[in-house]
Amino acid sequence: MKLSLLTKLRQQNPIVLNISNFVTVQDVANGINAIGGSPIMSEEIAETEAMVQMSRAVALNLGAFTEAQVAHIRKMGRLANEYGKPVILDPVAVGAVKYRLEVAQRLLTDFQVSVIRGNAGEIAALAEVDWAAKGIDAGEGSGDLVEIAKAAASRYHCVVILSGPTDVISDGKNVVKVENGTPLFQLHVGSGDMLSSIVGVFDAVADGDDFEAAQTACLVFAASGQLVAEELGAELPGTFSMKLMDKLHLVTEADIEKIAKFK
Amino acid sequence: MKLSLLTKLRQQNPIVLNISNFVTVQDVANGINAIGGSPIMSEEIAETEAMVQMSRAVALNLGAFTEAQVAHIRKMGRLANEYGKPVILDPVAVGAVKYRLEVAQRLLTDFQVSVIRGNAGEIAALAEVDWAAKGIDAGEGSGDLVEIAKAAASRYHCVVILSGPTDVISDGKNVVKVENGTPLFQLHVGSGDMLSSIVGVFDAVADGDDFEAAQTACLVFAASGQLVAEELGAELPGTFSMKLMDKLHLVTEADIEKIAKFK
Amino acid sequence: MKLSLLTKLRQQNPIVLNISNFVTVQDVANGINAIGGSPIMSEEIAETEAMVQMSRAVALNLGAFTEAQVAHIRKMGRLANEYGKPVILDPVAVGAVKYRLEVAQRLLTDFQVSVIRGNAGEIAALAEVDWAAKGIDAGEGSGDLVEIAKAAASRYHCVVILSGPTDVISDGKNVVKVENGTPLFQLHVGSGDMLSSIVGVFDAVADGDDFEAAQTACLVFAASGQLVAEELGAELPGTFSMKLMDKLHLVTEADIEKIAKFK
Repeated sequence: MKLSLLTKLRQQNPIVLNISNFVTVQDVANGINAIGGSPIMSEEIAETEAMVQMSRAVALNLGAFTEAQVAHIRKMGRLANEYGKPVILDPVAVGAVKYRLEVAQRLLTDFQVSVIRGNAGEIAALAEVDWAAKGIDAGEGSGDLVEIAKAAASRYHCVVILSGPTDVISDGKNVVKVENGTPLFQLHVGSGDMLSSIVGVFDAVADGDDFEAAQTACLVFAASGQLVAEELGAELPGTFSMKLMDKLHLVTEADIEKIAKFK
Repeated sequence: MKLSLLTKLRQQNPIVLNISNFVTVQDVANGINAIGGSPIMSEEIAETEAMVQMSRAVALNLGAFTEAQVAHIRKMGRLANEYGKPVILDPVAVGAVKYRLEVAQRLLTDFQVSVIRGNAGEIAALAEVDWAAKGIDAGEGSGDLVEIAKAAASRYHCVVILSGPTDVISDGKNVVKVENGTPLFQLHVGSGDMLSSIVGVFDAVADGDDFEAAQTACLVFAASGQLVAEELGAELPGTFSMKLMDKLHLVTEADIEKIAKFK
Repeated sequence: MKLSLLTKLRQQNPIVLNISNFVTVQDVANGINAIGGSPIMSEEIAETEAMVQMSRAVALNLGAFTEAQVAHIRKMGRLANEYGKPVILDPVAVGAVKYRLEVAQRLLTDFQVSVIRGNAGEIAALAEVDWAAKGIDAGEGSGDLVEIAKAAASRYHCVVILSGPTDVISDGKNVVKVENGTPLFQLHVGSGDMLSSIVGVFDAVADGDDFEAAQTACLVFAASGQLVAEELGAELPGTFSMKLMDKLHLVTEADIEKIAKFK
């Protein structure tokens, strides 16, 4: 866990290029901004190369893609590989919709990703482990979360973040569990998408250490949410999402160290 | 009025599939989530059938559609009919733009809707009653709101919600008026879109009783807004929209019963 | 500076038609609403003429356009010229991406704009002055902001707003500088887009005086943000964006006069 990445990214303010889920895009852009990165979004394939060149990481969200967008995602992923920029993939709802799983699996053969972030149902689907998924939620299954994360990471030669009450992060061999957080994250639709792009902000300054970037991003995000929830003292999803932006901007390494729970 | 639907939907957490207005989609998703449903949005026609199958209601918003999206909406409406899922239609701005009215009317012959929710100008246009509409707002006209709602409901064989300071809900024969609410709803752009999708959440657990679902959704939504406005005591549109999410999540049947005004 | 435009627009509630950046569209719509206008957004070229006719100003945001959207923007700009509606252009990221600069320059020969609003990097690019731009931010360059704004205004025969800690507004000959504001605007992704559309609201009621409309919109927006920041007393980007909506709705001419700093 390398909390100094938080200070480093705030000094460097790296640009993160996003293929966004239109449902959550504004929150994601504000979240990248609040933590200390610089978000850029693109919908037009003609500007992809210029965008990839000026960015330091690329976050690809499959939240509400169209067929046309898949070609754009593929081009962006390949260019990111070519220019050596880390690629974060968020495979939204691949656990629930077979069509989405097929698209995600095709993309994962078209270019190499650095980090995949999803919930248990999504990661299990990518790892081809049986898991009952329901809608955009994680579903309830009986698989071993650590084994699922490791299997997906090995299969796609990348780091995998399996998000949940406990985040499980694996590079295929090693595993870190982040136990901070709050159930309020589930009540806010953009939480997972925001985390995926924030992983991109950390990975942009991690000098190629995707595993450190992924762990640290999960810890900072989960701890920030936990701090907000503790201050609120009630289950207020609207107020939570607003104060999460405030906290992402102001949270310090020391604030996080005080409550950090990981192993 | 069947307030127990609120408890029921929170127990069942039904998935509602949405064709969304990109202007308000994030608020709509968070609103569905806050009240106790599970939102899913789709932009890709290839995944429509899988999405309809896993959903318990479908909410179709015509807020900012393109020609391509109309084909998607049509397919989704027909599949919802085939699989017996309730369909909510929000005919945004059909009172102001002739092109939109024509598209909406064509769609209403392509599949059967369960509930239409719009403002007076929109419902009057669908009912082909003269009414001066202006932009996205309701306009000011002199028609009898009850007659307009009944006419539209009879014409399209569905339940109609005519939203306004008083919501008028009709199945063509019977009429219920919900008199709760607050002018702050008008100051927040996504209010109507959010209500339409929340009607979908209620209809998902109403065992086919669209009329009860529509009334109850209107009462819960209007009363929640009124409670927030009373707590605020000032016309604060930003704070209102945030606290509305909090209230939708926490409001109880008892809270609503205390202030319910309908007949 | 004509602060009475604020009262006038609240009386008239003009419709402003927007081509929106999907990243910030909800905030922009709510901002137009909060200040006292009536927002309408469109994605479908078939309804462009009806939309332009019913609107009193048109705000064109190039934030995340696609090739298809460029044709839509062109048609909307030409129709706005034909019907005599003021046109505001927000050339997002033209300072950073050459493709975007080329598209914006082509559009600027296709129709006449009333006001261009951008940051220093964007306006410099349009004026073809060398300026180091970075991502969506203004970049840091050494050009003289006043000369850049004047050059762009002369070149495109329109009013130019060069936004920053000081807003520089020029019609090519005259220059006004608005010195109100707060660094919190930079922390909220939609601030510039919101200002551009709010310029449209002011221009809708300015009887053709684009220069007065531009100045006054900048002053009202910057002063509103400053008032919120002073009330907050801390760097809270989430809370700021919520309270900015409240302030845009409630701010009075007198509130602004008290702190107005321009020359």
